[in-house]
Amino acid sequence: MTEAAYDTDNIFAKILRGEIPSHRVYEDDAVIAFMDVMPQGPGHTLVVPKAPSRNLLDADPSIFGHLLSAVQKVALAVKKAFGADGVTVMQFNEPASGQTVYHLHVHVIPRFDGIPLKPHTGEMEKPEILVGNAEKIRTALKN
Amino acid sequence: MTEAAYDTDNIFAKILRGEIPSHRVYEDDAVIAFMDVMPQGPGHTLVVPKAPSRNLLDADPSIFGHLLSAVQKVALAVKKAFGADGVTVMQFNEPASGQTVYHLHVHVIPRFDGIPLKPHTGEMEKPEILVGNAEKIRTALKN
Repeated sequence: MTEAAYDTDNIFAKILRGEIPSHRVYEDDAVIAFMDVMPQGPGHTLVVPKAPSRNLLDADPSIFGHLLSAVQKVALAVKKAFGADGVTVMQFNEPASGQTVYHLHVHVIPRFDGIPLKPHTGEMEKPEILVGNAEKIRTALKN
Repeated sequence: MTEAAYDTDNIFAKILRGEIPSHRVYEDDAVIAFMDVMPQGPGHTLVVPKAPSRNLLDADPSIFGHLLSAVQKVALAVKKAFGADGVTVMQFNEPASGQTVYHLHVHVIPRFDGIPLKPHTGEMEKPEILVGNAEKIRTALKN
């Protein structure tokens, strides 16, 4: 069903193993969430199940309830944290869809009236901006 | 948490009650899936939980496992039915995000290398095209 096997050295697997840092906003037994370092808007967050799968197509459905509950939590938190008017949720499968990291992840992006999503340019956000945005989201998740 | 109350006269509520027709490809106790009549690409399908909620922000998490399992089934089916290279999954919350029908729904769109998504123009697809595409997806779901 998948295009290729799961690569245990993908960047999100390394983040999950703590081998490279991330601006983490949420973690539980099955899921972590952290800032996208190439955001399409302020507060762009990724929700990532800990279980390995390349994308949604080969994922074990037993994680889906937990995963989408975490997406909802993070969506409500980013909306509150940034005073957003809406939230876009996106999940890409394979390069034709825009997938660039081959570990299942869900994009959660605060949206504002009249402001389009920025294209996924590959431009890195400044770390100090990501630190501040992560703190806003963690605070919103607590309240 | 929501911007407004659930409107029981939204178009998907009417489809769920059978008051207006749809090109249905999948149905079980908790979810239906049917063709988007203004597709952003051939095979663009919507997965819709039967439980009423405005969008993901106010949805009951108890449906999430079932909903995302149905999204996975439909994603695998549209990929197979159209020989697609990938699949885009999107879910919009509030007008700022592009939501236009206020009943939770998930977009599942087959993707092809080098072909961008069409904008959501509001242009209706020809019914005979939707009939044929729905049949392809139903066949893929059976196999």
